[in-house]
Amino acid sequence: MTFYERAAELVSKMTLDEKIGQLSNVAPAIERLGVPAYDWWNECLHGAAREGTATVFPQAISMAACFNTDLVEQVGVATSDEARAKYNEYRKFGYTLIYQGLTECAPNINIFRDPRWGRGQETYGEDPYLTGRMGTAFIKGLQGNGKYRKLDATLKHFAVHSGPESLRHGFNAVVSEKDLEETYLYAFKYCIDHADPSAIMGAYNAVNGEPASGSKWLLVDVLKNKWGFKGYMVSDDGSIADINLGHNYTKDETESAALALKCGCQMNIGFSYAYLKEAYERGLVTEDDITKAAEKLFEARFRLGMFDDDCEYNDIPYDIIECEKHRKLNLKIAEESTVLLKNDGILPLKEGITVAVIGPMADDSTVLLGNYNGTPSMYTTILRGMHESNSCRVLYARGSNALIPQLRTKEHPINEAIIAARKADVVLLCLGINPSMEGEENAAPNSADHGDRITLDLPAPQLELANIILAEGKPTVLVNTSGSCINLDFAKEKCNAVIQSFYPGAEGGRAIANILFGKTSPSGRLPVTFYRSVDDLPAFEDYSMKGRTYKFFEGEPVYEFGYGLTYSDIEEDWKDSHTVVVKNNGPYDTAYSVLRYDRLPYKSLADFKKIYLKVGESQLIKFDKSEGNG
Amino acid sequence: MTFYERAAELVSKMTLDEKIGQLSNVAPAIERLGVPAYDWWNECLHGAAREGTATVFPQAISMAACFNTDLVEQVGVATSDEARAKYNEYRKFGYTLIYQGLTECAPNINIFRDPRWGRGQETYGEDPYLTGRMGTAFIKGLQGNGKYRKLDATLKHFAVHSGPESLRHGFNAVVSEKDLEETYLYAFKYCIDHADPSAIMGAYNAVNGEPASGSKWLLVDVLKNKWGFKGYMVSDDGSIADINLGHNYTKDETESAALALKCGCQMNIGFSYAYLKEAYERGLVTEDDITKAAEKLFEARFRLGMFDDDCEYNDIPYDIIECEKHRKLNLKIAEESTVLLKNDGILPLKEGITVAVIGPMADDSTVLLGNYNGTPSMYTTILRGMHESNSCRVLYARGSNALIPQLRTKEHPINEAIIAARKADVVLLCLGINPSMEGEENAAPNSADHGDRITLDLPAPQLELANIILAEGKPTVLVNTSGSCINLDFAKEKCNAVIQSFYPGAEGGRAIANILFGKTSPSGRLPVTFYRSVDDLPAFEDYSMKGRTYKFFEGEPVYEFGYGLTYSDIEEDWKDSHTVVVKNNGPYDTAYSVLRYDRLPYKSLADFKKIYLKVGESQLIKFDKSEGNG
Repeated sequence: MTFYERAAELVSKMTLDEKIGQLSNVAPAIERLGVPAYDWWNECLHGAAREGTATVFPQAISMAACFNTDLVEQVGVATSDEARAKYNEYRKFGYTLIYQGLTECAPNINIFRDPRWGRGQETYGEDPYLTGRMGTAFIKGLQGNGKYRKLDATLKHFAVHSGPESLRHGFNAVVSEKDLEETYLYAFKYCIDHADPSAIMGAYNAVNGEPASGSKWLLVDVLKNKWGFKGYMVSDDGSIADINLGHNYTKDETESAALALKCGCQMNIGFSYAYLKEAYERGLVTEDDITKAAEKLFEARFRLGMFDDDCEYNDIPYDIIECEKHRKLNLKIAEESTVLLKNDGILPLKEGITVAVIGPMADDSTVLLGNYNGTPSMYTTILRGMHESNSCRVLYARGSNALIPQLRTKEHPINEAIIAARKADVVLLCLGINPSMEGEENAAPNSADHGDRITLDLPAPQLELANIILAEGKPTVLVNTSGSCINLDFAKEKCNAVIQSFYPGAEGGRAIANILFGKTSPSGRLPVTFYRSVDDLPAFEDYSMKGRTYKFFEGEPVYEFGYGLTYSDIEEDWKDSHTVVVKNNGPYDTAYSVLRYDRLPYKSLADFKKIYLKVGESQLIKFDKSEGNG
Repeated sequence: MTFYERAAELVSKMTLDEKIGQLSNVAPAIERLGVPAYDWWNECLHGAAREGTATVFPQAISMAACFNTDLVEQVGVATSDEARAKYNEYRKFGYTLIYQGLTECAPNINIFRDPRWGRGQETYGEDPYLTGRMGTAFIKGLQGNGKYRKLDATLKHFAVHSGPESLRHGFNAVVSEKDLEETYLYAFKYCIDHADPSAIMGAYNAVNGEPASGSKWLLVDVLKNKWGFKGYMVSDDGSIADINLGHNYTKDETESAALALKCGCQMNIGFSYAYLKEAYERGLVTEDDITKAAEKLFEARFRLGMFDDDCEYNDIPYDIIECEKHRKLNLKIAEESTVLLKNDGILPLKEGITVAVIGPMADDSTVLLGNYNGTPSMYTTILRGMHESNSCRVLYARGSNALIPQLRTKEHPINEAIIAARKADVVLLCLGINPSMEGEENAAPNSADHGDRITLDLPAPQLELANIILAEGKPTVLVNTSGSCINLDFAKEKCNAVIQSFYPGAEGGRAIANILFGKTSPSGRLPVTFYRSVDDLPAFEDYSMKGRTYKFFEGEPVYEFGYGLTYSDIEEDWKDSHTVVVKNNGPYDTAYSVLRYDRLPYKSLADFKKIYLKVGESQLIKFDKSEGNG
């Protein structure tokens, strides 16, 4: 019997009420049928999340910076290993709760079209092609390639979802046909075509007037009919209720539930599908609609091996969580995701020097983690990474608060930072923002606007610290942590070297220290444009791509999409549009990402490949003509 | 010329306004006289505090548990080395701000008479003799023994100060003559007699109707005339304003300022002495009163070598901060301050086992630090200590929130803890409270009552976690962190071993791991009684000692003052009341604190000595007959 046939047989034994109950994420047990209670909601953007100890890999925006799909797929494999190991234990309780199951609300392949968006950190950046490739790699890692699905990946949020957080439950994104095709829907179609994701999640917002979670156009005409998507669909948490509450698109929640179900949303994260009984009684949905949805969901559960003893993932041991292999992978991707933006020759640092490690992000463990994260039992902040490098004497001075100008205890941390700078050979400024300042609606308490930002500048106390320390005239390296673009104009002008580390995961500090001391050559590239100011951008609510991203921004960015240096001297010798010889002419072995752009109708990433080149080594790369515009 | 003569000469050149200005902690520069701006306020209860990076030693209550005055004096030396190193650098700016100077608001030798008091962690516990000895050792370490004073120590808070925090600015402590002499004033007199502290700080509260910071009885009759105290006196922050605002004892702040000055308070931390000009004009104080005070303060500054190039402490280098010697000392005192309360033989743990490290305090760095702390650039939580011990495989599960029952992200951390427990050989429960739950007025945001506690029980989510994990039946060791007594009745009954670690400093996790795996035998003893419930105690506001501390408590404590086990088997063979032969009959080398009690008129600590005994070794100790009641 196929998974579907087994599902259909099981569902055929259920009452209408039982079937309806199975369509919400908190799906109850049906003991007489041997169905255990199961919560469909789990998270794993960059490692098994929110259910205790796990390897916390770099946040998605960091992973995008590595431009290395192999590594991202390996992170997907490691994540699914850990999620499976957890599931194997949690299921022994006889039920699995939220964050303990196999159906994951990841990846987030929305386009990071505006740097203000607090959730941009969850994405693979501003480029649809890069997003499609990274999403594909991660999904393959998560879902595996076995008899059973290892995990169900869910593309989110479908579609045209990227802030503002404060308006998301009733926002109507107005977009052109062209922007939809080239930007907002591109990665969804790419992942569906290349990775066979199990599921897709609806968005809170409306698109051109239709609430995304109940949009016949998006969900039936495009997703199902045009693209032939075969998976199941999930609502966002409460997004079906938003159809009436946020968008006033339906009269009540019953109509919303009916509309969503009719559009093909089988699984409701939230409580709206409790109204399906009433929708049935009012003739808005048929029992067959409900049966079909339940069959689809149980097909997925059977395909995940939840009811079979021979599932090849049942024996993944709990020991795999934070195992040495995963920690090594984590260090490697953190290193490859670190972006060197400027280096006047100060890097790599010499062994044995004194480094003044200055700044509020130096020992802030939250910048390692980003959001939607697990809990590492061991982690290395930048400060600890510098200490444990054993490569330098460290003078630490916090220097300032991260955000709030005045300290309750009246300390004067800037003076200590000046002392440390004066006594050091090199200053390592550790500045940036952290996940308390950017994130999801109401989940980032220090955000200026419900999770979003209103400025690209560093917080005032940190800028003041930077200016005072830079005035000391010591050789200075900036490490900036953030899940989004920060205005690094001051650093580009005044620092000797500039490193962007995003949110680099539990091994982040070790990766940064390895790069600073030349144990690894950096090879990350920016997955987003680093602008100077929001004043150079269209309004946050304006979803036209005009004036946004490296493709359509008409100003001069501080650092452009795709930018990133190595310690070596890499030469690209393009033989034709798809063939390049890459040669390492410099003194360091290094990884290197080769980027191929199409130029027509505008500059657009069309392919990329990460390679490893020893000193003096060269490599011929032939890009596949089926990628990009061919 | 003596320091006093130099001070008198300098002060003689000042105008009345200049002299008045020098009597407040933010003392301005007098450039024509070569007097730099100086803030008298600094803190160093357990290491140089609140001015950036420093070795953070165990909180005072922890240090008291080591019953080792040599170590406490060494901590004083290390603290003064770091504070001097900081001062040497900060003074180069041409001024020294709050927390950058040489005049320290430490030690806190108040008696921890009631476990509810949030600031009890700052003290040496409930016993006046222990407090006097510890205070003496710490002061000697801080002040040094040179031509100049290394730092000025300040006894605080004089007197009868121990909560409630919510009432402190207007509270009247009613005490008997006997409790004053035997309990509340004992350690002050002991330290003055034995350690020559430079200063003493007034309290916020009133004592028997007289505000302590303006009490002629306390400050003139007792302190100056009866005890012959030769140092200077400092107000608490704003305590002079409280004389009128909190106590309604004077008509206005001018009268309060005049009263305090007349009582011998030369230094006002706060703003009240700005009213001295008006007090002078109203005839409440004379210029001579003001001159005498300024002379006294400048004598102190001269004695600290602030105006001399030959001060022996001017060359203490910045490198001494967090130096290897201090880190080793910190580890040693953290080990000796760890109190083993129960051991059924499970400890020390065997190498190579799997340990489930469970609980919200396992990776909470704030429990290392206590309050009035510096910032360590390296620190070891219990979890990290277990990892870095390389003695076991660690399974970490946070298990619960520290305080709040329900998590925003809906995680179910207890299930993870159960899984970890089931997979482990031994469970290490890391529970307790942290400095967000107990501390000074309005400085502990999670306190139930303005810094104080209202229960001795662990927070509900932690008790629930403990009960669920203990029900698993695995061998379980509890490490409790807290600056005060916690009701450990459940642990005494159900855990295989119980360790009280107080707030153990930056090396705390390493110390605990060393003890758990038998690298060090524990030797700490409780400096406070561990009660079962506040219901067994008099009202918090009742300052009578009846029913309090090991001397007068009539119930059965869970663990008594002075209690603490080693891994070995130590025999005390008392030859007479002052002579004892101590023998190590057990299988472990160990430190051991020998306590001598007087029994009349009630059991009372009279002397103690920490010794080190190898296996089979014995030592004869003759206690000094001049200590205790002789």
